[in-house]
Amino acid sequence: MEELSVSELIKSFVEVRQSTIEICRPLVTEDYVVQPIPQVSPPKWHLAHTTWFFEEMILVPFLDNYKRFNKNFNLLFNSYYKAAGKHWLQAERGQLSRPTVSEIKNYRQYVEDFIEKLLNMGTQNEKVLFLLELGIHHEQQHQELLLMDIKYILGTNIELPTYRETELAKASKLKVEWFSIDEGVYEIGHKDKGFSYDNELPCHKSYLQKSEIRTGLITNGEYLEFIESRGYEKAELWLSLGWDWVNDNDVKAPLYWIRKEEKYFEFTLNGLRELDLNAPVAHISYFEADAFSRWSGHRLPTEQELEIFESKSQIKGELWCWTSSHYSPYPGFKNFEGAIGEYNGKFMCNQFVLRGGCSATPKNHYRETYRNFYPPHERWMFSGIRIARN
Amino acid sequence: MEELSVSELIKSFVEVRQSTIEICRPLVTEDYVVQPIPQVSPPKWHLAHTTWFFEEMILVPFLDNYKRFNKNFNLLFNSYYKAAGKHWLQAERGQLSRPTVSEIKNYRQYVEDFIEKLLNMGTQNEKVLFLLELGIHHEQQHQELLLMDIKYILGTNIELPTYRETELAKASKLKVEWFSIDEGVYEIGHKDKGFSYDNELPCHKSYLQKSEIRTGLITNGEYLEFIESRGYEKAELWLSLGWDWVNDNDVKAPLYWIRKEEKYFEFTLNGLRELDLNAPVAHISYFEADAFSRWSGHRLPTEQELEIFESKSQIKGELWCWTSSHYSPYPGFKNFEGAIGEYNGKFMCNQFVLRGGCSATPKNHYRETYRNFYPPHERWMFSGIRIARN
Amino acid sequence: MEELSVSELIKSFVEVRQSTIEICRPLVTEDYVVQPIPQVSPPKWHLAHTTWFFEEMILVPFLDNYKRFNKNFNLLFNSYYKAAGKHWLQAERGQLSRPTVSEIKNYRQYVEDFIEKLLNMGTQNEKVLFLLELGIHHEQQHQELLLMDIKYILGTNIELPTYRETELAKASKLKVEWFSIDEGVYEIGHKDKGFSYDNELPCHKSYLQKSEIRTGLITNGEYLEFIESRGYEKAELWLSLGWDWVNDNDVKAPLYWIRKEEKYFEFTLNGLRELDLNAPVAHISYFEADAFSRWSGHRLPTEQELEIFESKSQIKGELWCWTSSHYSPYPGFKNFEGAIGEYNGKFMCNQFVLRGGCSATPKNHYRETYRNFYPPHERWMFSGIRIARN
Amino acid sequence: MEELSVSELIKSFVEVRQSTIEICRPLVTEDYVVQPIPQVSPPKWHLAHTTWFFEEMILVPFLDNYKRFNKNFNLLFNSYYKAAGKHWLQAERGQLSRPTVSEIKNYRQYVEDFIEKLLNMGTQNEKVLFLLELGIHHEQQHQELLLMDIKYILGTNIELPTYRETELAKASKLKVEWFSIDEGVYEIGHKDKGFSYDNELPCHKSYLQKSEIRTGLITNGEYLEFIESRGYEKAELWLSLGWDWVNDNDVKAPLYWIRKEEKYFEFTLNGLRELDLNAPVAHISYFEADAFSRWSGHRLPTEQELEIFESKSQIKGELWCWTSSHYSPYPGFKNFEGAIGEYNGKFMCNQFVLRGGCSATPKNHYRETYRNFYPPHERWMFSGIRIARN
Repeated sequence: MEELSVSELIKSFVEVRQSTIEICRPLVTEDYVVQPIPQVSPPKWHLAHTTWFFEEMILVPFLDNYKRFNKNFNLLFNSYYKAAGKHWLQAERGQLSRPTVSEIKNYRQYVEDFIEKLLNMGTQNEKVLFLLELGIHHEQQHQELLLMDIKYILGTNIELPTYRETELAKASKLKVEWFSIDEGVYEIGHKDKGFSYDNELPCHKSYLQKSEIRTGLITNGEYLEFIESRGYEKAELWLSLGWDWVNDNDVKAPLYWIRKEEKYFEFTLNGLRELDLNAPVAHISYFEADAFSRWSGHRLPTEQELEIFESKSQIKGELWCWTSSHYSPYPGFKNFEGAIGEYNGKFMCNQFVLRGGCSATPKNHYRETYRNFYPPHERWMFSGIRIARN
Repeated sequence: MEELSVSELIKSFVEVRQSTIEICRPLVTEDYVVQPIPQVSPPKWHLAHTTWFFEEMILVPFLDNYKRFNKNFNLLFNSYYKAAGKHWLQAERGQLSRPTVSEIKNYRQYVEDFIEKLLNMGTQNEKVLFLLELGIHHEQQHQELLLMDIKYILGTNIELPTYRETELAKASKLKVEWFSIDEGVYEIGHKDKGFSYDNELPCHKSYLQKSEIRTGLITNGEYLEFIESRGYEKAELWLSLGWDWVNDNDVKAPLYWIRKEEKYFEFTLNGLRELDLNAPVAHISYFEADAFSRWSGHRLPTEQELEIFESKSQIKGELWCWTSSHYSPYPGFKNFEGAIGEYNGKFMCNQFVLRGGCSATPKNHYRETYRNFYPPHERWMFSGIRIARN
Repeated sequence: MEELSVSELIKSFVEVRQSTIEICRPLVTEDYVVQPIPQVSPPKWHLAHTTWFFEEMILVPFLDNYKRFNKNFNLLFNSYYKAAGKHWLQAERGQLSRPTVSEIKNYRQYVEDFIEKLLNMGTQNEKVLFLLELGIHHEQQHQELLLMDIKYILGTNIELPTYRETELAKASKLKVEWFSIDEGVYEIGHKDKGFSYDNELPCHKSYLQKSEIRTGLITNGEYLEFIESRGYEKAELWLSLGWDWVNDNDVKAPLYWIRKEEKYFEFTLNGLRELDLNAPVAHISYFEADAFSRWSGHRLPTEQELEIFESKSQIKGELWCWTSSHYSPYPGFKNFEGAIGEYNGKFMCNQFVLRGGCSATPKNHYRETYRNFYPPHERWMFSGIRIARN
Repeated sequence: MEELSVSELIKSFVEVRQSTIEICRPLVTEDYVVQPIPQVSPPKWHLAHTTWFFEEMILVPFLDNYKRFNKNFNLLFNSYYKAAGKHWLQAERGQLSRPTVSEIKNYRQYVEDFIEKLLNMGTQNEKVLFLLELGIHHEQQHQELLLMDIKYILGTNIELPTYRETELAKASKLKVEWFSIDEGVYEIGHKDKGFSYDNELPCHKSYLQKSEIRTGLITNGEYLEFIESRGYEKAELWLSLGWDWVNDNDVKAPLYWIRKEEKYFEFTLNGLRELDLNAPVAHISYFEADAFSRWSGHRLPTEQELEIFESKSQIKGELWCWTSSHYSPYPGFKNFEGAIGEYNGKFMCNQFVLRGGCSATPKNHYRETYRNFYPPHERWMFSGIRIARN
């Protein structure tokens, strides 16, 4: 990936900002407000938080005499950056009716105008351009989060409203194939000059054992076999924490699967539809991915294996694939400097890496070295299973 | 109070339904949706639930061929009537973005049309008329709840938006006077033919000791003295559960009091204003009312004492007054029959009675025998303190 | 009841102290230490706390130059008297292995010696004698608590060890009879000069409606009918909080009932035995007593009714009977003065009164005006059901 | 390490069993019973559980006609092996007063007699010998746990009783030195024929970057500097979960540090003593170790680095050192077969590896490839900090 020019950056900024609004277009006002579970944020919060990022990281420090749109927004729309001051509790975002959706849209416009003003002053320093690119990537991440959260919000309503009306094609039958990785030393991490997050750096050597990665994701049909063989009831298949999670939450199927009279349905952004057995299984926790892979006689790949697999096979993912790698710093890892240093490093504890991107990941956002990460019990993201063997 | 004629009932029905909508008029759509704490319901839920009551208690059983507006609404808008089927959890009402406010308004219209149709059929039986009157009173109760909940919802937002713009007059200085009640046997409970809830019945004899009730409510100024004498820090003033409550929640003042630079302000439906020392102290828990009365060398009155006080003094309340009476059945108490039997009786445990009505109580709704009740830690209702002595 | 002379008090003191030790004699050292649930205290804690009461209420203030046995014991063995300083959390009593049982027995001897020394100085003031009598009654209360807690502790062990080996006689068949109470004004509360707790005072007039009280307690057989008619599954029989309690705790029978192959057994201090259908049902929560009485078409009596019943019928209780009366202050109630003022008054919130004593209540401890009280979900005490009707 | 002969195994078995009893000798009966926090087990539970392991893994499957000592003990003393049946909840071990310490000692003798009988039959198969060796190592692990738990139990008591009376020597001043590791491919994991746990296998190649490891552990004095520079108050030093942990638990110093009048003391198995600034800091969570290392400008080593460091430097640890490595399976990892397959693998989620052993680790138990692991918030084990740099 190449470095972007200023005009390309501005173009990208405008497009990404517009695209966020497009994602929300099918929503009614009420959909923007609710937070059915703590990890799902109200869409209006995403609209404001991505704007806050540009305001607080760029306009406040770099635009002389910039006046904040609203002095309370730093408290309300900071997600977790301690260096940027106190912030409203994540779990309580759905308690707020104000600012309204309309006020937040005005906030977006206000900040966009000033960003464009700053960029058009022709005196950009490197730092501003870097932060702008980071802000664009940040907003793209939230576009995917928006789709995850919108799906959860709609799926909480008893009538399961549809987000978009397009029809989903049926998947074709999987052809099982394995991709080989030779034993040896590999370079892992981001190499070229283009943008990457700090957690993809530095590029470093890593020793990989001989392994094979299955080219196709695990399908609904394969996962259904696991369920029907009573996989959720067999302690020996599960990590200890996973077994607690299954029992505490009475988990019996992936998120969004609904059983009606002996048949499984799946809630999708296109509404409820009968389970497509050839489509990849989605909305899976690490615990489930790990138990399934053990049940199937395989294992989950490491993140290094998936990076090599992806770079060599050129297979792009429909779903983020859980890896067996806890999310840890690369050797020689350094945080971004300043408040944005809180972007990645402080979460390197008790989470697992997912690789490969998904259909909700914005174009131009993803790289082969991209490290997504979630706690092992989460499954409202578009996660799936890819298996490996020695 | 007299019994109402059919035409009076219809008139009352129309007025009360309209009045609920009026209460919500100052809200923006987002305000209708949120539930900042479990006991505060989203306003759109109130709009739907009061309608559900008429639909489920009257239209479904008494109107031939009535078709429900939406078959899911019985699940969503039943509050707690087990006899009426399963219901959505109270604490999760704020998770739902749908049905929208607009759909709920259509629901209201639909049910109102059929209620009027039923009433105009000229063949009302006693039961329907009773349920209609009960439904009207039920909706009036929710009008007060709406104002409580709206206040809490607005007060959660960081900018403390104003519900109404009218200016509040300053209270005049309190003149301390005591009203005497003689020792002896009194009749307690609802006597005449007009409407009452089941918990006000039967009228029965009760022996009261000699006592005096203060005519004026405890003021903000008096309560401030309690605070400044470190009342919240003295275990000996508090019930054991109250002391736990104070410490677990770090309580230091009534709800809605805000301290800024050595001065107290109070959030009201008219916005934030400086504390009016002559106005009655409001949004007080039973624990606080009890501790204050102990600190002041007095006690809280019993509910019987306040019933006699009110009937003889004709002093109407600005605020619901906590009594020292746990909420218990009157001797010979019988539930209403059927699902509405769950209206009152099943809450007769670990709550305290409040008497006197408040400025948010709808006209024509209140009677001297009215028994309001809340758990001792609650304070988002319009509650205050009236003291007694022997 | 008469006032006791000094020599009678000393005799009573010695006997009661000895009797506490006797109650613990069947225990092994390990039984003295554990706290299986927060409300059950380790027996060694009871041995120490009852001693602390004499030390802290009498020896420290009234015996010149008295030196505490151990300066840490005030922290460890104060139960809840805030006026007596900080105290170890109730729920954490079972965390402590030290002081050992043997050290606590030395503590008991040390304090007894000084109490006897103080009493034999011949200069007792009224206050000391009153506190001594209070301390004796306090220790008697803890004797009953010891039996409750020992039963729970033994019953937690998988082999259900027996506390005492004596054989229990089978109860004879109940003869159903009702005792009538006439409508009118009655005197309620402690009247004579003998000892009473502050919560039994003052004696005052109360108006009772005409009622009948059943002379026999509800039997296991009667309660079994309630279970078999699916009483635990019918929401309409339960208070709202009671219904939550049943479902949150999956309650299906009284505490200590064990079902084995279609038969019920009951764990008793005499070991596990087959359920005696004629014996009174025990270890019942208020919620269960209330639901049972509603199911049977009756109601629970008020505490005033049971006081009159007991004084007139001379029927003494095998089990503490739940009343429908929340635990509230009598008109004109005043706390004991000083730290012992925390004995009763501060618990007058969200508890219910039980009347009548039980077979574990020490002789000479009980009076007809005695007010026992527990939260409505508790059932490890020896509680039962007596029903009333109008 | 070499394989052991049968007679060496028997000798080792007898010694280890005896040594467990020796560790408990300073305890009074009450100390054997309590469980002050869920992760600390009562010493009598350890005595029984280590015995259960031999009974259930060896005697039951391999000794014909073996009769269990007590049929309930499989339920009570199974720790977490689902394949071995249901088990008593870990957090509720301290609820049980029975079996008594004395009964458990009889249980130990009974099982030891049968193990010796089985071994002396002269017909051992490989599996029995392997399980015996595993059982011995398992009991040695519990010896260290016993010391951890005893320390916590004694340290909970207000008088901080001393476990042993020997005097602790003062540490000498640290000489700061760094040990270099060259970049390249290394073999990691257990190699020779001697015993190891499954999680140390298979031996595999791993690529290490150039690094340096400090030879001396972080001292109390160095850690005190971190505290005095307000390290516990600076969000930027902490992992996100670590920052929550510090604030939720109000952590201000290592476990067992006690501040009295501006001076720090440390509770040790030898009683309370003034903090020795030259001694290594102990009872540190991963969160603290990570924050300290960031504050000091260094980082924690990986587990691979510490394995190489230890094998080359021959520096043995006084304390288990936290590594930055989440506890994950080695490439090609396979569980032990059968119930003992639950020994290690199912905990490979959200824990961190510690390396190096500690002074409480039994002799002959530790290997350089040994992987200890704990969740990042735990600190009742003998954990310390060793730092690394690139």
